[in-house]
Amino acid sequence: MDNNPTSYADRASAFADGSDSPRVFLERCLTTIEAREPVVKAFVTMNIDGAREAADHSTQRYRAGAPLSPVDGLPVGIKDVIETQNMPTQMGSPIFDGWQSEGDAACITALREAGAIVLGKVVTCEFAAMYPGATTNPHDPERTPGGSSSGSAAAVGAEMVPAALGTQALGSITRPASYCGTYGYKPTLGAINRRGCHDHVSQSTVGAFGASLADCWAVTQAIASRVGGAIGYPGLYGAAVLTPETRPRRVIRLETAGWADASGGAKAQFEDALSRVDAAGVEIVDRRTSPLIEAFEQVIAGATPLTRRINAWEFRWPLAEFYQRGGDLMSPVMRQRLEDASNLHLDDYRQGIAERDEVRATYDALSRIGDVCLLLGATGAAPLGLESTGNADINVPASLLGAPALSLPLLSDAGLPLGLQLMGFHHRDEDLMGHARWVEGVVRP
Amino acid sequence: MDNNPTSYADRASAFADGSDSPRVFLERCLTTIEAREPVVKAFVTMNIDGAREAADHSTQRYRAGAPLSPVDGLPVGIKDVIETQNMPTQMGSPIFDGWQSEGDAACITALREAGAIVLGKVVTCEFAAMYPGATTNPHDPERTPGGSSSGSAAAVGAEMVPAALGTQALGSITRPASYCGTYGYKPTLGAINRRGCHDHVSQSTVGAFGASLADCWAVTQAIASRVGGAIGYPGLYGAAVLTPETRPRRVIRLETAGWADASGGAKAQFEDALSRVDAAGVEIVDRRTSPLIEAFEQVIAGATPLTRRINAWEFRWPLAEFYQRGGDLMSPVMRQRLEDASNLHLDDYRQGIAERDEVRATYDALSRIGDVCLLLGATGAAPLGLESTGNADINVPASLLGAPALSLPLLSDAGLPLGLQLMGFHHRDEDLMGHARWVEGVVRP
Repeated sequence: MDNNPTSYADRASAFADGSDSPRVFLERCLTTIEAREPVVKAFVTMNIDGAREAADHSTQRYRAGAPLSPVDGLPVGIKDVIETQNMPTQMGSPIFDGWQSEGDAACITALREAGAIVLGKVVTCEFAAMYPGATTNPHDPERTPGGSSSGSAAAVGAEMVPAALGTQALGSITRPASYCGTYGYKPTLGAINRRGCHDHVSQSTVGAFGASLADCWAVTQAIASRVGGAIGYPGLYGAAVLTPETRPRRVIRLETAGWADASGGAKAQFEDALSRVDAAGVEIVDRRTSPLIEAFEQVIAGATPLTRRINAWEFRWPLAEFYQRGGDLMSPVMRQRLEDASNLHLDDYRQGIAERDEVRATYDALSRIGDVCLLLGATGAAPLGLESTGNADINVPASLLGAPALSLPLLSDAGLPLGLQLMGFHHRDEDLMGHARWVEGVVRP
Repeated sequence: MDNNPTSYADRASAFADGSDSPRVFLERCLTTIEAREPVVKAFVTMNIDGAREAADHSTQRYRAGAPLSPVDGLPVGIKDVIETQNMPTQMGSPIFDGWQSEGDAACITALREAGAIVLGKVVTCEFAAMYPGATTNPHDPERTPGGSSSGSAAAVGAEMVPAALGTQALGSITRPASYCGTYGYKPTLGAINRRGCHDHVSQSTVGAFGASLADCWAVTQAIASRVGGAIGYPGLYGAAVLTPETRPRRVIRLETAGWADASGGAKAQFEDALSRVDAAGVEIVDRRTSPLIEAFEQVIAGATPLTRRINAWEFRWPLAEFYQRGGDLMSPVMRQRLEDASNLHLDDYRQGIAERDEVRATYDALSRIGDVCLLLGATGAAPLGLESTGNADINVPASLLGAPALSLPLLSDAGLPLGLQLMGFHHRDEDLMGHARWVEGVVRP
């Protein structure tokens, strides 16, 4: 189904007939890691012995014709804000140097039950926010991998692992996926159980990076079908196996905040992708043809400042705790954020979440005029330098909306990867996947 | 404003003029604790030295005319599922014997900032559920104090402290308040920041027990105004000072599940309370006069099984972790619950939360026909025996609805305390308080 040699989704028959095995697959990953990790620096902690042991068990299960799930034997990298009982969870902060949780996060429990291999913890920006770790972009070590799920995107982008878990509250999955040339999937808000995930804010969602759409889907389904969604949410809907390609009736073209800042190359690639959709006979609607879309683009224009306002209030209390624990080890940007937080008022937050509710309602109305929205996966290729994780404006709408989103590694900018972003509608993640498969078939160069 | 000698709400002027002081107040509490604690057994851990020091600081602030808030100097008991940095949080389970959190829960941070005195941790049922601790009812040691906030209710009911924090997911505030003869206040769902509170399920809310309505309100406002509500929720609305008495236009009489099981004495007291409301000239509407109320009573009839179904799914993952940590120290009832959980399906949970949404919408419609609902605070006086915490059926509707509720210590049954329960509408906690003051004035014997 996919040409990516790291994709795990098409291995099952080879594992069953013995021409490949989860242990051999793991060794290929480890060889790649050995070759690339010194420059890419995606991992914080690894458990190679444990992974080999788990891969051997998985190998036996396939040989016995009894794999536990589609992700049995799949080596996965875990963003270092998600608790693992056998590896520290260090939050990208020296304040949590060596900090060991008491157990596994619910999503890790699920992955282990499904037979997946928790190979290691991967780099996160400090507290899943802005201040970057050491990871470099696997396509150019002078460039950022994006953030905050930096190590997750880089590990998959460097073909070290077929999948990794991340979290997104602004653009922490789709942006690094775009920069690193991987598939990135941010499910509908609340689709994945958040117990044991230190991501703190109400619009954050656990999601997956993958070497293929099928890998992203298999990992998230393996979790959601075992431990459900966040409490109070219905969890990820859909079947265990990736839905077939589904041609959309109409596609919505969105030019949200970030579009104006996009590079000329990125814009040209986006226009080219849309022309291919058009050439395939699918209608494209946009703000020029639909007042509903125009209205939505207006209310979503302030997505980034609104999100920052909401997150600033919610993140204030965790941050105060971290400061008390070791404020001198906190980044200057984070200390400033804590200082700024002293000016926040509850009524501003209330106004913020009320505005968010309104934007969500406006967005839901678009589901009647189109099946999927197309945007750029980032404003351009990963920028030079490791100090900033890049511009997330074009990634924030899906986070604010709580809508499912994908970044597909179909475009390029200045010879570097660029994602095509698809945004779907609440709880219709399976539709989004089906349309993504169709778009992929039409747009892939 | 209140005859209860333990109420803190009317102390400020005496503290200011020096005729009383937070330190002297605390010593009165400690004297009561010394006298009653050997039988009542409300406390798990106490920090008397720290409390005296804090009370001295508070005393100085009042003398300087600069108390930090209405709860400055107020000694408060904390349900032992809420994290405190200087005392263990033991969850009512030997599995967490001596377990020390890394910091304070957000609500504790707020209380300390407001000058309140964190006097000690009080008994909770195992994991804020069903299996009772050692606490006895302060009005009869042969009887249960109710649960799961057993120690919170008993400590306030025994006049050991003017206020205590609890949590409610089924009936864990209003039922023990009714049994122990205290005020119990469960705010609107999400009104209080839950960070650091180990109460696990989506319909759980942090709330307060108090020696007066003003104490309940002051404590919850002190928290919410500083650290807001649960993430994604607008938090508790209202002013720092308790709202004036507000006469309702119409009162809704509810006979939900549990009413049929109520004792004859309880029912007679309820009828008497309603006749006093009627005599004061306020119209009472019920299912006989309103099809809307009839419809609501039908959809809420299954509140307890629906709540148990929702909670069973959500609590499954925490419970599995606790079992892994020390399953042999888990109560048989909890082990059974974990075993039963293996039969749960995500779709059942989805169905459950969808039903809950419907019930909430039906309830919201009642706000157009009445200002406040009246129910019994419990099905009768606290039952004999310490093995069961009593019947919570009549307390579950407010939890399922996420509506604010109060139990007022205005009734009696067989010579023991019985609460009158008032249930309000989402985010209109301040209206509920105003109506409660009016009801109290009319019904108080």
